[in-house]
Amino acid sequence: MSNQKRFNVAVVGATGAVGEQIIRLLDERNFPINELKLLSSARSAGTKVKFKDREVTIEEATPDSFKGIDIALFSAGGDVSKKLVPHAIEHGAVCIDNTSAFRMDPETPLVVPEVNIDKISEHKGVIANPNCSTIQMVAALKPLYDRYGISRIIVSTYQAVSGAGAKAINEMLRQSKEVLEGRDPNPDILPVGSMPVKHQIAFNAIPQIDKFTENGFTYEEMKMINETKKIMGDDSIEVTATCVRIPVVYGHSESVYVELKSDFDLEDVKSLIANAPGIVLQDNPAEQQYPLATEAAGKLDTYVGRLRRDLSNPRALNMWIVSDNLLKGAAWNAVQIAEYIAIEQN
Amino acid sequence: MSNQKRFNVAVVGATGAVGEQIIRLLDERNFPINELKLLSSARSAGTKVKFKDREVTIEEATPDSFKGIDIALFSAGGDVSKKLVPHAIEHGAVCIDNTSAFRMDPETPLVVPEVNIDKISEHKGVIANPNCSTIQMVAALKPLYDRYGISRIIVSTYQAVSGAGAKAINEMLRQSKEVLEGRDPNPDILPVGSMPVKHQIAFNAIPQIDKFTENGFTYEEMKMINETKKIMGDDSIEVTATCVRIPVVYGHSESVYVELKSDFDLEDVKSLIANAPGIVLQDNPAEQQYPLATEAAGKLDTYVGRLRRDLSNPRALNMWIVSDNLLKGAAWNAVQIAEYIAIEQN
Repeated sequence: MSNQKRFNVAVVGATGAVGEQIIRLLDERNFPINELKLLSSARSAGTKVKFKDREVTIEEATPDSFKGIDIALFSAGGDVSKKLVPHAIEHGAVCIDNTSAFRMDPETPLVVPEVNIDKISEHKGVIANPNCSTIQMVAALKPLYDRYGISRIIVSTYQAVSGAGAKAINEMLRQSKEVLEGRDPNPDILPVGSMPVKHQIAFNAIPQIDKFTENGFTYEEMKMINETKKIMGDDSIEVTATCVRIPVVYGHSESVYVELKSDFDLEDVKSLIANAPGIVLQDNPAEQQYPLATEAAGKLDTYVGRLRRDLSNPRALNMWIVSDNLLKGAAWNAVQIAEYIAIEQN
Repeated sequence: MSNQKRFNVAVVGATGAVGEQIIRLLDERNFPINELKLLSSARSAGTKVKFKDREVTIEEATPDSFKGIDIALFSAGGDVSKKLVPHAIEHGAVCIDNTSAFRMDPETPLVVPEVNIDKISEHKGVIANPNCSTIQMVAALKPLYDRYGISRIIVSTYQAVSGAGAKAINEMLRQSKEVLEGRDPNPDILPVGSMPVKHQIAFNAIPQIDKFTENGFTYEEMKMINETKKIMGDDSIEVTATCVRIPVVYGHSESVYVELKSDFDLEDVKSLIANAPGIVLQDNPAEQQYPLATEAAGKLDTYVGRLRRDLSNPRALNMWIVSDNLLKGAAWNAVQIAEYIAIEQN
């Protein structure tokens, strides 16, 4: 592939939990890079990052940073994306945005490659990466949707603190240590950094991720509801979500009840999931085998288990879906999209 | 109340996590005790326990231990109950059994006082205390059942390690320390002490509580399904449960989706819950107020919040239910039943 086209790639939010994983994946997967530009806020600019055999100095992200950039991966928060994505597009870059800024924009494809990679060709400069908790769920449900149809999804999540950034990881570990030492843990960041009330996350479960909307659901829950319909391309799917933060570092777990549109065979469901791209079936109760956050951490795949037919509704299934929220839930999904763009242009 | 009848009370499993709470509650609530007999396995016999102004020496539980006992509270495991409850009944005691031994026996009332205290009069020597995760759910749902009827419940649990006993608490705290110190945590007890495969609980979520049944559900899940119908006295309620252990010490949390049989008003639901016995409404999203395991720990009540109408089914509600699994989920529910028995006989 020595004649392969090579791309000028920018990573915005290079020092964040997701940005770091994007850089690592671009490196490990030998993404065809010509120039790599690492961008951040002024505060983090100047930091040096190792990439292949070179060192890349992080620069402050400005509207002019995107001159000559082919592909820009954004994960520096919605406000940064809203401000800088238009400039990147103007300079000719394709943007892959990991924030919620453009996800529900009807002009912007919202892409999980295992579900709707065909949508990337419709982009008008930006492709949105869905919310972490949505990505793993739709990736796991897609083979069932294609075979049986889906009428309803009821999901309760068990989400890792890394979804709230590196500071939330540090807070959870610090609080855990404080509780173990018999000291009072001092909540400082979670559940929502920008909101006034803080709750202990160590040895606790907080039923709030993101702010509340008017209808009593949180934004995180509404993301799961709305993004699922958009990614599946089917507004008729009814979705209910309850999103909960638990003291896990990496890996979101999800308890999912799903009603299918037609009768199903449980062995067929297992076989569909076992053969789906990016999905690993881990479902052997006799061996106490099922997906676990600690085991999914660091992996690119989504793990599915605890598959069982509902006892009251024979067209419904229950399952347990686990994936690394920073990888398939963020960085890896974004790099996957970038890889498809690179293939398209070669 | 000096002429009040006083009872000879036995506590079987006096050194266990639940037994200790039963003794504390009998003490704090000034249960009308004449003689208190604390019973355990031979291994723990001889231990002295402070009760009021005296010391009680724990004795080995044998068939003869129940001579003269009026009320016997059992929480030493199903096998001990199966073996000793018949002897206690023979000696004339009323048994309150906190194990699963008699719960589904059609002759045995399964009682949550807020739901079906009227059933205690039907006992034939033993009253069963339901499973912890079931108790808090039915207590919270009872006012909605009475007003609107319930057709379906879909619940995902976030259960504390104390539900698996004092050893599981120690294991979770030890593993947490090991992970924080960069050492490998060595799983030893959870998810199920008597099963061969062990999983890390620190900073993890384990979708297995108790063994698996043939249908892919665990016994814990089947308990929630079957006990809910029995306690509510309504086999038409459809229940689905996914039971998950998370790294919390005390307090089970539950994400509950419930379909009502008739239209409801959300403010009326809040008012019903706020006024229900043993239930506390904690539901103020604007103040980021909702039930939390760390706050419910040590309390007798069940806390309910995150109440919101489902977006796809206007007759369905979502809610978050939290209670101390060793108290309302076990010891307190048992002592409550004992208090009703004492009142009946006075």
